[in-house]
Amino acid sequence: MNETIQLLFHHRSIRGFSTENISQEKIDLLIQSAQHAPTNNFLQQYSIIDVTDEMKKKTLAKIGNQTYIAESNRLFVITADLHRNAEIAQEKGKSTEVLGSFDYCLRSFSDAFISAQNMVIAAESMGLGTVYLGSILNDAQAVIDLLHLPKYTFPVVGIAIGYPDQSPELKPRLPQIEIYHENEYHSSERMVHDLENYDQTVSQYYDLRNKNRRIDTFTDQIAKAMEKHPEKRMSMLNVLKSQGFMQY
Amino acid sequence: MNETIQLLFHHRSIRGFSTENISQEKIDLLIQSAQHAPTNNFLQQYSIIDVTDEMKKKTLAKIGNQTYIAESNRLFVITADLHRNAEIAQEKGKSTEVLGSFDYCLRSFSDAFISAQNMVIAAESMGLGTVYLGSILNDAQAVIDLLHLPKYTFPVVGIAIGYPDQSPELKPRLPQIEIYHENEYHSSERMVHDLENYDQTVSQYYDLRNKNRRIDTFTDQIAKAMEKHPEKRMSMLNVLKSQGFMQY
Repeated sequence: MNETIQLLFHHRSIRGFSTENISQEKIDLLIQSAQHAPTNNFLQQYSIIDVTDEMKKKTLAKIGNQTYIAESNRLFVITADLHRNAEIAQEKGKSTEVLGSFDYCLRSFSDAFISAQNMVIAAESMGLGTVYLGSILNDAQAVIDLLHLPKYTFPVVGIAIGYPDQSPELKPRLPQIEIYHENEYHSSERMVHDLENYDQTVSQYYDLRNKNRRIDTFTDQIAKAMEKHPEKRMSMLNVLKSQGFMQY
Repeated sequence: MNETIQLLFHHRSIRGFSTENISQEKIDLLIQSAQHAPTNNFLQQYSIIDVTDEMKKKTLAKIGNQTYIAESNRLFVITADLHRNAEIAQEKGKSTEVLGSFDYCLRSFSDAFISAQNMVIAAESMGLGTVYLGSILNDAQAVIDLLHLPKYTFPVVGIAIGYPDQSPELKPRLPQIEIYHENEYHSSERMVHDLENYDQTVSQYYDLRNKNRRIDTFTDQIAKAMEKHPEKRMSMLNVLKSQGFMQY
């Protein structure tokens, strides 16, 4: 198994960071790694916001409801970005109507996520710890206001990066058979039954990680995930539409 | 620069493949690499369809309008997958209403893209060539039918993988200043003017790649991208909704 695959296999999200600064050289490598990712039709429809302002970091930590967001050495927000290309097209006298389609929404979100994962992998290859912050979307409009995100941009995910101050166990993944399908999607009627062993493995993992935490199985976690989230999160589609995306 | 970052910096999409087979051991490493990617709240809301049936590959090549899709040694379709967790939740007597939100759509699409990029990086680390196939979304409903994708799943992207039979030049990326922002999004009124040098660099790249192809600048490509795509692609949101996503 080569070095890169070993790295991928050892991914853990890091939620505790030391105070050590990341050098500018390493930050540049992170940004360049993101830029080398493939993008849809080479349209490069994403942007990276490097949040260095401590007040803004604190605001994002409050939105995400996680203190470690503000404690990370660096904090990036990756945005879908059709704005740049809209400006270019308008300058060239073109209508930008297509940008309101779900198709273009997907293209830009895809560019953003794929670039984000390149940053995460580059960071981990340099001994840094990372955690994705989906939680900033608890209030997408607040993030848009905070970072002055214009029409045709949307904050798809945050990434906190720093030197790790913890070394969590690897989290056990679903059995391969559950996510892998050959030629067509297979549903198993006995899936919940089949997942009993996996449920036990996940419980053991949580038990090892924190003796004081209530121990959830995987399927219990799924059941809990079906509960309603904050209202602003559940109505996020309105914010997406008001940014110009997903008109049709 | 470490081995992994060197690999990220050398990414090129490969659209010509040799007939050499990829070993099962390597395929397993690809799937496992995808599985080790971080997922939203550990919900693992994606699936991988390994398309080995030659007729299905040909159908996907026809949908994507690119012959190299059928010529690749292996072809994967990565799907957003809320179906698995919906089954688990229903078994546990829970309402699955939240799965119809844009929030859950985004969570599952994000899981799919991030896992896909892990597969791409793992493949490249083993000397394989890859290309993302956004083009399968020229007819999302046909892909859904072909792969028997149930409610709450959606084919977000294809990946063709094989041993490379070509060695294209690295494609020059936008100047860092265009995609990088500190603390807030900056728009430049002079962007199109500022991109003149980059336009020349991109033209030179295409000129080197293929003397017979019309040479486009980057900004020309953007202008062209604003033209209408196939009707089925422009109305993809209907397909997404009929799969159960994005009800609110």
